Amino acid sequence: MNLKEIIREIPDFPKPGINFKDITPILANGEALRHVIQLLAGHFREKGVDRIVGVESRGFLFGAPLAYELGCGFALVRKPGKLPCSVERVEYALEYGTDALEIHRDAVGAGQRVLMVDDLLATGGTIGAAMDLVHRLGGEIIGAAFVIELAFLGGRARLTERGVTDILTLVTYDAE
Amino acid sequence: MNLKEIIREIPDFPKPGINFKDITPILANGEALRHVIQLLAGHFREKGVDRIVGVESRGFLFGAPLAYELGCGFALVRKPGKLPCSVERVEYALEYGTDALEIHRDAVGAGQRVLMVDDLLATGGTIGAAMDLVHRLGGEIIGAAFVIELAFLGGRARLTERGVTDILTLVTYDAE
Repeated sequence: MNLKEIIREIPDFPKPGINFKDITPILANGEALRHVIQLLAGHFREKGVDRIVGVESRGFLFGAPLAYELGCGFALVRKPGKLPCSVERVEYALEYGTDALEIHRDAVGAGQRVLMVDDLLATGGTIGAAMDLVHRLGGEIIGAAFVIELAFLGGRARLTERGVTDILTLVTYDAE
Repeated sequence: MNLKEIIREIPDFPKPGINFKDITPILANGEALRHVIQLLAGHFREKGVDRIVGVESRGFLFGAPLAYELGCGFALVRKPGKLPCSVERVEYALEYGTDALEIHRDAVGAGQRVLMVDDLLATGGTIGAAMDLVHRLGGEIIGAAFVIELAFLGGRARLTERGVTDILTLVTYDAE
């Protein structure tokens, strides 16, 4: 199955010059969704994952089925104010300004083996901030999985610098 | 497995007087997540579901694994401005003011059999608005599934009035 043919490219979304990669056609296609989750699960099944951490909200779309398939728990990283219990919070830089993410303090236990999941690896800024939250809770990040990698934005190198080397991406774009 | 014991109640979130039902401990518990998805799948497996529609973002957490388990596609209902392609949009009344939801016009095909999924059935306002979007696209709503039902808010009757009678909820609260 050629996932790149299923992903839809939307010019100038959310702003001019961005060629947005729309993963909704993968989700709409039961066979493609199954294929994606089984590829991710096949790679990480024997690696002792205790917890999958997914970032709101497209990370939920792939992270939750993957947790279900692997039989492990799923932890949510959300925008501020959405999680009802005691949280850790991290701010991180965007192109213009900053943003913030939160995780429940009991979402990951000390020493748990964590797999980070999101739909897309771009610069690695968002997933890096989510990783900071997991580290604060004492989690050990054993890998990261993404459906799409925008290789020209260098996110892979930034994750490797942070010590994550088992990075699985299914569809790579080498240029804008 | 007693799901009500796993769900966490948070007083006065997101505002005073609301006793928030936190489903994150279900997700964090691999066995509980598996139990929930298999209960939902068991009920709807033989009912010919073509498409699951889930509402951002807690609806994604249960809807996507359920689509994966049933082998059908998943369609996203999101807040305005998040979906990149051509959308249908609906506005609906809140306690104070209005909110809006969108769906991609190609997310559901005419005549497709649709199962609506969200984490919680309260007044039914949000899921009712999502149902309006599905109807506009010609989808046939064959049922609705929720982890939690706040029975004292009357959402079930409102879904029934709209013609949806196959409503599965796993945990019911009869009073605030």
